Amino acid sequence: MTDQCWLSPQLIAQVQSLRFWVQPGKLEDLISTNLRNEIVMYFHSTLAGVPAEADVLMTSGQLPDDSFTIEQKQAQWVVSAGSTTALLHAFYFFALHYYLGDLSSARTVHRPSQALRMLNQWDNFDGSIERGYAGRSIFYANNHFIGDYARITMYARLMSSIGLNGIVLNNVNVHKEETFFITGEKLQRIKDIAAIFHRFGIKIYLSVNFAAPIQYGDLATADPLIPAVAEWWQRKLADVFRLIPNFGGVLVKADSEGQPGPYTYHRNHAEGANMLAKAVAPFGGIVIWRAFVYNSQQDWRDRSQDRARAAYDTFGPLDGQFAQNVVLQIKFGPIDFQPCEPVQPLFGALRRTNQIIEFQASQEYTGQAIDANFLMTQWEQLMAFDTRGGDESLPLRNVPRRCSPQPEFSGIAAVSNIGRDENWTGNKLAQSNLYAFGRLAWQSDITGQQVLQEWQRLTFADGAVQAVVGEMLTASNQVYVDYTAPLGVGFMVRAQTHYGPGPDDYEFDRWGTYHFADRYGVGVDRTVLTGSGYSRLYSGSNAAVYDNLATCPDALLLFFHHVPYDYRLHDGQTLIQHIYNTHFSGCQAVTQMISRWQTCAGRLPETEYLNVLHRLQAQAKNAREWRDQINTFFYRFAGIPDSQGRTIYA
Amino acid sequence: MTDQCWLSPQLIAQVQSLRFWVQPGKLEDLISTNLRNEIVMYFHSTLAGVPAEADVLMTSGQLPDDSFTIEQKQAQWVVSAGSTTALLHAFYFFALHYYLGDLSSARTVHRPSQALRMLNQWDNFDGSIERGYAGRSIFYANNHFIGDYARITMYARLMSSIGLNGIVLNNVNVHKEETFFITGEKLQRIKDIAAIFHRFGIKIYLSVNFAAPIQYGDLATADPLIPAVAEWWQRKLADVFRLIPNFGGVLVKADSEGQPGPYTYHRNHAEGANMLAKAVAPFGGIVIWRAFVYNSQQDWRDRSQDRARAAYDTFGPLDGQFAQNVVLQIKFGPIDFQPCEPVQPLFGALRRTNQIIEFQASQEYTGQAIDANFLMTQWEQLMAFDTRGGDESLPLRNVPRRCSPQPEFSGIAAVSNIGRDENWTGNKLAQSNLYAFGRLAWQSDITGQQVLQEWQRLTFADGAVQAVVGEMLTASNQVYVDYTAPLGVGFMVRAQTHYGPGPDDYEFDRWGTYHFADRYGVGVDRTVLTGSGYSRLYSGSNAAVYDNLATCPDALLLFFHHVPYDYRLHDGQTLIQHIYNTHFSGCQAVTQMISRWQTCAGRLPETEYLNVLHRLQAQAKNAREWRDQINTFFYRFAGIPDSQGRTIYA
Repeated sequence: MTDQCWLSPQLIAQVQSLRFWVQPGKLEDLISTNLRNEIVMYFHSTLAGVPAEADVLMTSGQLPDDSFTIEQKQAQWVVSAGSTTALLHAFYFFALHYYLGDLSSARTVHRPSQALRMLNQWDNFDGSIERGYAGRSIFYANNHFIGDYARITMYARLMSSIGLNGIVLNNVNVHKEETFFITGEKLQRIKDIAAIFHRFGIKIYLSVNFAAPIQYGDLATADPLIPAVAEWWQRKLADVFRLIPNFGGVLVKADSEGQPGPYTYHRNHAEGANMLAKAVAPFGGIVIWRAFVYNSQQDWRDRSQDRARAAYDTFGPLDGQFAQNVVLQIKFGPIDFQPCEPVQPLFGALRRTNQIIEFQASQEYTGQAIDANFLMTQWEQLMAFDTRGGDESLPLRNVPRRCSPQPEFSGIAAVSNIGRDENWTGNKLAQSNLYAFGRLAWQSDITGQQVLQEWQRLTFADGAVQAVVGEMLTASNQVYVDYTAPLGVGFMVRAQTHYGPGPDDYEFDRWGTYHFADRYGVGVDRTVLTGSGYSRLYSGSNAAVYDNLATCPDALLLFFHHVPYDYRLHDGQTLIQHIYNTHFSGCQAVTQMISRWQTCAGRLPETEYLNVLHRLQAQAKNAREWRDQINTFFYRFAGIPDSQGRTIYA
Repeated sequence: MTDQCWLSPQLIAQVQSLRFWVQPGKLEDLISTNLRNEIVMYFHSTLAGVPAEADVLMTSGQLPDDSFTIEQKQAQWVVSAGSTTALLHAFYFFALHYYLGDLSSARTVHRPSQALRMLNQWDNFDGSIERGYAGRSIFYANNHFIGDYARITMYARLMSSIGLNGIVLNNVNVHKEETFFITGEKLQRIKDIAAIFHRFGIKIYLSVNFAAPIQYGDLATADPLIPAVAEWWQRKLADVFRLIPNFGGVLVKADSEGQPGPYTYHRNHAEGANMLAKAVAPFGGIVIWRAFVYNSQQDWRDRSQDRARAAYDTFGPLDGQFAQNVVLQIKFGPIDFQPCEPVQPLFGALRRTNQIIEFQASQEYTGQAIDANFLMTQWEQLMAFDTRGGDESLPLRNVPRRCSPQPEFSGIAAVSNIGRDENWTGNKLAQSNLYAFGRLAWQSDITGQQVLQEWQRLTFADGAVQAVVGEMLTASNQVYVDYTAPLGVGFMVRAQTHYGPGPDDYEFDRWGTYHFADRYGVGVDRTVLTGSGYSRLYSGSNAAVYDNLATCPDALLLFFHHVPYDYRLHDGQTLIQHIYNTHFSGCQAVTQMISRWQTCAGRLPETEYLNVLHRLQAQAKNAREWRDQINTFFYRFAGIPDSQGRTIYA
């Protein structure tokens, strides 16, 4: 039976005891109908005929479209929203927090921090999921639509229950089959899926292939400035909107890692995006344009290139040139979803371009649903980063709304971590990342601790289990960082799989991800004077802070500096000793997590207990490999023994 | 049109001018019939009605079965052989050397050095070839028999023309489909293939799956000591021999790299092999048992294991325990077909076990039909190695006949390098390796230079091209060694593909192939006092020569010793400088090869010219990557600059 995640049977049972009154009238539409359905069919609550008989009054109010209020008036809860979608979100919010018991009786306004709150499915039509670790796609198998609408409905509910409002249904890498999603029988099936998400206030989007006019065989070019190309897209996308009026728009990964794009025709990315934007504008659609563009044919010998600069160099000069319904979707960091990397300097620098911050709930580089890793810990730190560095504070979390000319076309997105596994996320504990992402999108200043406490209490019935989970996940992100690549140095993972250590796997490859370890030291010199000058791209005092070895935060030391092994970190220990210490302690922490988890046996369903236990055991093996390979790798270079005499294999 | 390799149109034209008289009578069998066919149909020569009218008399004589003589009596050549197969071999030998013009008029006895002269096809039923670089299989495609009997006939002719007499038709890694080659409709098709090879005096063999009794669903075990298992094999193999009377026997890769074997049942390899041997003995068949057995789940941290010891430790104690129709097929070196490794110490040590030496004509680790590499240079050195090391000299080439209790069940084998490419071997120059292997098998003391001169003259019509090819191939093997992993240190190739540099790709993996490079030095300590003791396994003075740093040949230095970078080689240069020098010179040599080859333009067919040119250009790119990655890899450890100030990327 499929896991209900945070919408647990206990939660449903408690909400069931309430009677709801939903205001009839102007809110009557598909979403409103669905809301009543949810209350009655899914939560098994009853609808009151008149307001006086209700425990909860749900009404429309004079509020922005995306907002709602909750307050307690005598014995009644009053929930008021600016739209049917907001009322649906309000209902789930009420249900979850009623169960948690943390609703304030005073009137509280809830407005999402981010306008676009999206998940990106990297699902392929063949059923595989790129960088997915929870089974095959819930949408597709063997180049067919599975048509498991019950499962899709559950997913839409899970998304809506944490306030998400958009989903991209296919992989950003658009292969041959998916190129044809925008037409014919395939589009009919997409429409069926869209209808489900629409009931839950979620718009669907499709990743499109920039070379589609050629792939279709209709045109010999995809040059965005050739009228026939623009007209082709206008026709095709008009058809999509006519069939799916609530269609959100398209997502494009262009000129990146083998994907086609405007560069093929010597056009820039604004020219490419704007052409598509014009096609979807009449229907209120948007074009989400990914900023993940870099030279993936780099020569490791060429130090003049720095992949970290790529997005900035490409998109910085285009600020202000994108159409108003284009949104640039920018990965949080300059490289690629690493466990430890700084915030992308485009954030705070772009001021005339709509922006989405992109995270990855799927744990590509962060443990692959084997290693426990509560990603919110990292997201929280990133979102708090002051992108302006000084005088005028602008934390990353405020950038999308503040720096986007059309704030309604801004927000955050995450690569989804779900698949056909019964528990959705492979590892039960990884549900926390999906939950956290939704909460972060809605309330971007929420703390990791608050999210975690909500999730653990919503998910596990037993208090002792909640406590152990809370403790484990609180530590998990740092533990993972500790036993993997040190201090922001980046790629030391195994090539291709991106799981487990491969300290030199990328060192002489074409991906621009190097650590430059040698007998003297390690790290990437990105300083202005002697390095790539990447540090200069940051605003305000950030540039100097990163550029200066003395002020650069230890956690990012090797991202910005090439440092000798005997360099002393801020806590006084040497770099090499820090590497040894964190690798021993990180690995040991996993062993302790197993012991702690074993105290939970019998306190939760056996399948859930074993699901986590087996993954922790695999994680312990992984952590041991990381510990020993990284320690040995550096020991062989540095020749400096561990000050505590622990075993480092020669 | 498919390349005729060394049986070139010029050769055929010259032989065509001769009239042959083939003695009728007791030699009349299928092979003899085929011989007449070859003379008339393929070589377009004519048959003389009476001896007096012939230029060449072909007769039976009082000779061992596998031998023939050639002599000139007045105007007539007289070729005499001990069997029809030998007469066929004699015919081709005569044809080739008549064309080359190097036949002696004095009576010369030709007897093959090796009894079994075999090729191993690593072809899978799906048409792929494991470690094949010349296209797909000529036998199989998509789990069907292609039935291209013309192509198979050409292959049989090529093999027979250089004296080969055995072929294993499927990959040593026997997958599901190939398990069923020994029965039913598949065996019928195998029979058709066998009939072709039989006409050319070549026996066919099949690789079998030791777990076949289970795979077939007939038995629950494959334990060789359980009578039902032995009986199962007796029934199945008796069927094979009844259908294909000339069937040679079976090849088994057991207990290696995931293949099943006797160890599953706590039986030793003699028990496993002897069970099968009993099944084929009544029909004169043999069991070829591969000695490539090692722990492929090694822990890189565990220095107590040394993969180089594996075959010796497994099979040394079993000497004398194998049935008389079992042949142990032993890779030439202790690791795995490396460009530079010592001779396997089992050779010379085993004295009561039939032996086949295994080479790899397919260039898995030696350039993959991209890089020019005349492997005979290495084979010649290996074959000359004195396995006894001293008093009683026993070069490797004499080991199979001398140390096998049944010399007729001994010989050499090579993994074939042919595929469906028009030129058979992907790279035209790689035909030389197929030719060389046949010649080496027949005449094991032949020199590389002699083989090369034969091949270049048989293959290219133009004298200038012959000269350039001779020059390039003469240097090619050392050039390849120069720019790849230094001084016998072994695996520094990219994982999985085994092409191109990946200096650390195997360093922390489970395959037992480590180089142990650190800031002080590099190499595997296999000495008795401080290392794995592997050096001790060699006979006579070899043990001490290898064990002693001062006497160990430079070319194998890092195979046997862990050596500091400033260690001085026999020529006085330091290890690190040697690494730099050879990598610069090896890479440069490839550039020179391209220039030399370009002088051949217009002097040979355009397709052949371009075939080689494009591969040389790809090789140059590969050599440059090797040069720079290996130099940088060691420079980062050693910190010692190149004494000549050439560019080493930091």
